[in-house]
Amino acid sequence: MKSITIKSPATIANLVCGFDILGLALEAPYDLMKLEKTLKKGLEIIHLDAYNLTTVPENNVAGAALLSLMDVANLAHGFKLTIDKKIKPGSGLGSSAASAAGAVQAANMLLDNQFSQDDLIRFAMNGEKVASGVKHADNITPCLLGGVTLIRSIYPLDIIQVDSPELFITVVHPQIEVKTSDARQILKEEVSLKKAIKQWGNIAGLVAGFMKGDHELIGRSLEDVIIEPVRSILIPAFDEVKKRCIATGALGGGISGSGPSIFMLNKSLETALQVESIMQEIYTRVGIDFKTYVTKLNKQGITQTEEEL
Amino acid sequence: MKSITIKSPATIANLVCGFDILGLALEAPYDLMKLEKTLKKGLEIIHLDAYNLTTVPENNVAGAALLSLMDVANLAHGFKLTIDKKIKPGSGLGSSAASAAGAVQAANMLLDNQFSQDDLIRFAMNGEKVASGVKHADNITPCLLGGVTLIRSIYPLDIIQVDSPELFITVVHPQIEVKTSDARQILKEEVSLKKAIKQWGNIAGLVAGFMKGDHELIGRSLEDVIIEPVRSILIPAFDEVKKRCIATGALGGGISGSGPSIFMLNKSLETALQVESIMQEIYTRVGIDFKTYVTKLNKQGITQTEEEL
Repeated sequence: MKSITIKSPATIANLVCGFDILGLALEAPYDLMKLEKTLKKGLEIIHLDAYNLTTVPENNVAGAALLSLMDVANLAHGFKLTIDKKIKPGSGLGSSAASAAGAVQAANMLLDNQFSQDDLIRFAMNGEKVASGVKHADNITPCLLGGVTLIRSIYPLDIIQVDSPELFITVVHPQIEVKTSDARQILKEEVSLKKAIKQWGNIAGLVAGFMKGDHELIGRSLEDVIIEPVRSILIPAFDEVKKRCIATGALGGGISGSGPSIFMLNKSLETALQVESIMQEIYTRVGIDFKTYVTKLNKQGITQTEEEL
Repeated sequence: MKSITIKSPATIANLVCGFDILGLALEAPYDLMKLEKTLKKGLEIIHLDAYNLTTVPENNVAGAALLSLMDVANLAHGFKLTIDKKIKPGSGLGSSAASAAGAVQAANMLLDNQFSQDDLIRFAMNGEKVASGVKHADNITPCLLGGVTLIRSIYPLDIIQVDSPELFITVVHPQIEVKTSDARQILKEEVSLKKAIKQWGNIAGLVAGFMKGDHELIGRSLEDVIIEPVRSILIPAFDEVKKRCIATGALGGGISGSGPSIFMLNKSLETALQVESIMQEIYTRVGIDFKTYVTKLNKQGITQTEEEL
């Protein structure tokens, strides 16, 4: 195979009480990426989107990830990577992870799957480092593997796939900027033991809820007493969105990644669409531009596609 | 039915990274309790053991729990409760929970199961309050239900049964006193966010490991970076016991309840017996009296028995 085109999905990290450890993949939105072997060695990057991202491989998120794979693979050829980014950078939906994970997964598919999942995660984390300065894996992992994933530990890497029932997910992306670095800085370095215990009761309940397919338990466990109360002040109308979506029937939800997107998990498509209406109504009234998505939990992760860039 | 005899098992609360929320039940040791209906109203308690526990119902752990059930049940008769306690009080093996849960479960069996599991947990917590001043449920719940149980929340009560593979458990009870109140007091009220995140990664991994029946994942997740480093200093030779038991093949383990007992989970009976030898060797050398148990995860909880008191 000389060329491959893949869909690299958006992801939700920091899954409420699963801050820094739990993420999931969405069916939409997704980036399209085409990777071609070239006679010329090295890496060429082309962006078809209008986000004005650098195409200098070392500074590009997909490029940095792919270069770290190429360093190890010792190839006789080069690569040309064409990216049509549809996940807006800075949305909190794992845009950089989709670039990083997509690039290395596509390369691995062209290289007869010579690298393991853990290898790919490590390569992709080099891309995340370019994006945010930190090698985190909580978007990369669900992007690569699909479904709900637990990062128990990064050093040493310990990734656990968490079974889950079908879920319909509503996302609203208010078009404001929340810098990941700001969102990190406002967190307190210390938390009360009491709250920490409440949080680990919830994360235990959430994992059990996913694995039992118990939607009500998932809903009851989607509570974050540590991060959300601090970070949600950066997102206008957060409390109202959350309260009204849950009153409408959403199981629960919270900040996607470090924001500003907000997501809600739902048991049915019908509820997911009602939740979307609520989000639209609130941000229309508040006067902030926004984009909404109604989608499903993506159980495949990155997949090959016939779509054309 | 006018009379019933039950076995009420020992339990391990504060399951390593599951401090305050995760517990499990053991096959042994267990208390024997016989409950009889009496014509005379009220509650009479007899202790056959030599622990010198009060038999004044209001001040007795089993009595306080049972009285709170009797208050609601509005009975035309009384009860006589005979207790042969085999779980030593102060061992960290849920001795008071066995009394409290055993008494109310036996009563419910004699009263045609008119109360729900949640009712019984609430009644039994009144017994725990007499024992330690706190209404905690992390011994009561596995004692009543068997297996591994998660207490996601006490107010409102939210109990989740966590599936688990077969496990062999080795326990050593060094015969020293660790007061629950002391063990509570030395805990810091604040913990670092970094450690809290590590802890909730581990608890999520532990729940997933139990539910997947993945012994290696259970082992990797049995790590407590918050409570154990502080509390283990109260237990002589703790670090050596833990290190050598794991080197011998135990999956992992830690302090049972608030100590002084130490437990280790094992995949096979053979390993559990080797672990017992290590524990015996260490406490013999250190010169502290001790008792060991090699037992299994108890999946039934409290059960009726033909054994005689």
